[in-house]
Amino acid sequence: MSTTTLLPLTDVSACCAPLTREPITATQAAGLARSLKAIADPTRLRLISIVAASEGQEACACDLTEPVGLSQSTVSHHLKVLTDAGFLSRRQVGTWAHFALVPGALDSVARLLTTA
Amino acid sequence: MSTTTLLPLTDVSACCAPLTREPITATQAAGLARSLKAIADPTRLRLISIVAASEGQEACACDLTEPVGLSQSTVSHHLKVLTDAGFLSRRQVGTWAHFALVPGALDSVARLLTTA
Repeated sequence: MSTTTLLPLTDVSACCAPLTREPITATQAAGLARSLKAIADPTRLRLISIVAASEGQEACACDLTEPVGLSQSTVSHHLKVLTDAGFLSRRQVGTWAHFALVPGALDSVARLLTTA
Repeated sequence: MSTTTLLPLTDVSACCAPLTREPITATQAAGLARSLKAIADPTRLRLISIVAASEGQEACACDLTEPVGLSQSTVSHHLKVLTDAGFLSRRQVGTWAHFALVPGALDSVARLLTTA
């Protein structure tokens, strides 16, 4: 998964009415499915949740392996998927990558699923 | 995927605070990931969207193959995944199955993803 092939979440949100308002196009469905696939994984949901609950909604990758009980490389893979999909942002602090919640990214997906 | 192994969406919603409020447990993450996986597919998103836009938010399986351009058996498989996951309900009308949106199911997932 590469950032260049993904429709940014802000575009997904801007382009589409909620899923249940009118039939979505194949292109819109493909974009939303890609975003949903990125978070449709128990470990990735837990990582998002832990990052969100951290101070400043940012956490060092070094603090994320122990809570999910997986290796650093597996956690790094999951963090990359979430970053490529636009749910997390990444910045380097010394030798460690820090990950922060991208404001509005989860909300964009939630808005598309809301029926009211 | 069988209905008996799935946590009903109403339970997912009742059990969990939004993902970003506090770290979710492994069990909660597994339940939400299962629900997200069921909808993280372009065809299934389109089927939900078409059913939702139909009169009474219900559609005959016979009217769902043409809009998505897939075979009846493929569409039936996708409809079963959505029904097992609690997003659609199914009732038999003569020889055809009709599928309706389960009120509140998508909203339960949306609520868990909303950060505000």
